[in-house]
Amino acid sequence: MNGERYAERRRRAQEAAEEAGLAGLLVTPGADLVYLTGYAPLPLERLTLLGIASARDPFLVVPALERPAAEAAPGVAGLEVLPWPDGGDPYELVAVLLRSGRFAITDQTWSSHLLALEHATADCMFVAAGRALPLLRAVKDPDELERLRGAGRAADAAFAGVVGLPFAGRRETEVAADLDRLLREQGHARVDFTIVGSGPNAASPHHDSGERTIRAGDAVVMDFGGVREGYCSDIARTVFVGEPDEEQARVYDIVRAAQQAAFDAVRPGAIAQEVDRAARAVIAEAGYGEFFVHRTGHGIGLEIHEPPYIVEGNETELRPGMTFSDEPGIYLPGRFGVRIEDQVAVTPQGAERLNEASRDPTVVS
Amino acid sequence: MNGERYAERRRRAQEAAEEAGLAGLLVTPGADLVYLTGYAPLPLERLTLLGIASARDPFLVVPALERPAAEAAPGVAGLEVLPWPDGGDPYELVAVLLRSGRFAITDQTWSSHLLALEHATADCMFVAAGRALPLLRAVKDPDELERLRGAGRAADAAFAGVVGLPFAGRRETEVAADLDRLLREQGHARVDFTIVGSGPNAASPHHDSGERTIRAGDAVVMDFGGVREGYCSDIARTVFVGEPDEEQARVYDIVRAAQQAAFDAVRPGAIAQEVDRAARAVIAEAGYGEFFVHRTGHGIGLEIHEPPYIVEGNETELRPGMTFSDEPGIYLPGRFGVRIEDQVAVTPQGAERLNEASRDPTVVS
Repeated sequence: MNGERYAERRRRAQEAAEEAGLAGLLVTPGADLVYLTGYAPLPLERLTLLGIASARDPFLVVPALERPAAEAAPGVAGLEVLPWPDGGDPYELVAVLLRSGRFAITDQTWSSHLLALEHATADCMFVAAGRALPLLRAVKDPDELERLRGAGRAADAAFAGVVGLPFAGRRETEVAADLDRLLREQGHARVDFTIVGSGPNAASPHHDSGERTIRAGDAVVMDFGGVREGYCSDIARTVFVGEPDEEQARVYDIVRAAQQAAFDAVRPGAIAQEVDRAARAVIAEAGYGEFFVHRTGHGIGLEIHEPPYIVEGNETELRPGMTFSDEPGIYLPGRFGVRIEDQVAVTPQGAERLNEASRDPTVVS
Repeated sequence: MNGERYAERRRRAQEAAEEAGLAGLLVTPGADLVYLTGYAPLPLERLTLLGIASARDPFLVVPALERPAAEAAPGVAGLEVLPWPDGGDPYELVAVLLRSGRFAITDQTWSSHLLALEHATADCMFVAAGRALPLLRAVKDPDELERLRGAGRAADAAFAGVVGLPFAGRRETEVAADLDRLLREQGHARVDFTIVGSGPNAASPHHDSGERTIRAGDAVVMDFGGVREGYCSDIARTVFVGEPDEEQARVYDIVRAAQQAAFDAVRPGAIAQEVDRAARAVIAEAGYGEFFVHRTGHGIGLEIHEPPYIVEGNETELRPGMTFSDEPGIYLPGRFGVRIEDQVAVTPQGAERLNEASRDPTVVS
């Protein structure tokens, strides 16, 4: 992507900040900085900060020793780069540049940086960018959508690969290692999580893979993903080791129907919480409402979790290009759990699934 | 490690907070939470927070869906676990528990969490734990030291392996991939960075590995590390592709002497900035002072960068069990660079190197 595209994104960010009544936007390492500059340093204790303010041209404050790396990033050309040396005070530097006003700041900015900025500035207020400008990266452009489709197809292929492997008699960690390998074979540069929850472990939504040996009769929730060409994958499927019993089959059908109901609710103009309600209604009507203990979904893009969140209380209006997960679940403590997750994109007409791995009940051996 | 050890660490943290005049300490996911509870969730948008306050027993606020994972962590037994559901307000919950006072908060806590806490609390002040309690994890216990030695030996072995491979004609990224593989073969669960900077790229201290093809006559800075058994490795060596020329050899000798001078300055009771000065004096006397553009070192442990920082202005008194890097460098823009980095532990008598890979000038082919 060329420098002009990044400059255009910065102009849009500045307009969005002004529309939100902000004096500007402060961005530290992470997805927002990648989005706005193409620069991806590690978030560390030395301050790196992109300032976008109405009062002046954008600037990038960087530790002196990072200057060459910063200037090599594709979107940094045309930005004023302001290096500060070890032993210097970058917060005073930023304070002088900002002067005064209400600024959005990256959600993930370290608190130590924020506290130092609060201390160094007299007339500045800070608000979380995720609250003030939640949709900065929410509408994906065609290139981003294509990368998300690619990441989704890669995760689908990893699922197709893993169900051909044996489950019974192997530990969760062994299946997790297979998922890691399969995702990398499918072009993932990084694998962020390979949750394999079997039997009672499947009833813990964020159970990490452990030493439990998978057995016949288990439901196994697999939830895995990582980063491919800069964009995230995230898929969950629940498989059965041997034919599911009656209750497992019933719960599976309910979750699948809820997942479909949420998908059917996605269209431009729909409200985020309506999608959550659509899934929740199906599960509640079937009598399992209290066992669906999390929101229906989260946005996805450069980050695995980003706005829009598909949760009660989120009144964001869905727009074409938004991408998020659709992942209801039912968790019966001490017994078993089922979750089915696809990534979904809002289209001009309705919605598109970015995952197409089978949602039919799948029996593994 | 058993639960009692974690409870003991929490008691020490509370004492340290009280000695620092604080009402308590707030810890979010990351190294501090691992240190104090053994719980290592991803730092995400849902609040997870350990509260250690004089006024009450420690508590752990967790998203409801993370509760089983939290309770399975080795140091969480005996902690009051307070789950909050999606759609709930965890900040109000924390505000009620804290009441009032000045609290240290993890440096890496997301700003969005801190801003919400600042908003929810009326009579609480927050300060960065890295400033208020910088030495919380600085003095390593014998088990931690042994893990850091193991990580150091593994990095040494990776260096010994890479210098036997060809350099000239290969790209930096290829050598970086070798380092990644070698670290994993040496028991690293994670590789965090494999910097290979050749020729002029070696003059950028944090140059990432790129597409440049390494050539005869290059100095090549390799700086690499990751995590082994929970603790970090981090080593840098500079090698020459063919015999170094006169200036390369001279600069190398200066950096090696500076690195030794810093090591010789390490002992209990020494002040952190004195170690920095010791390295800096050698380089300045040789006429290269302006080309040593970073601090001499950083602490290491559960995190790759943590206190104590070996930098001018840091008046921390060194104590046995503290561990940090000794890594002076000289960077000649557009030409070449040299850096030599070992991890060092303060011992009752003086200092111990945690890396023993050769510091002699090394010629590769």
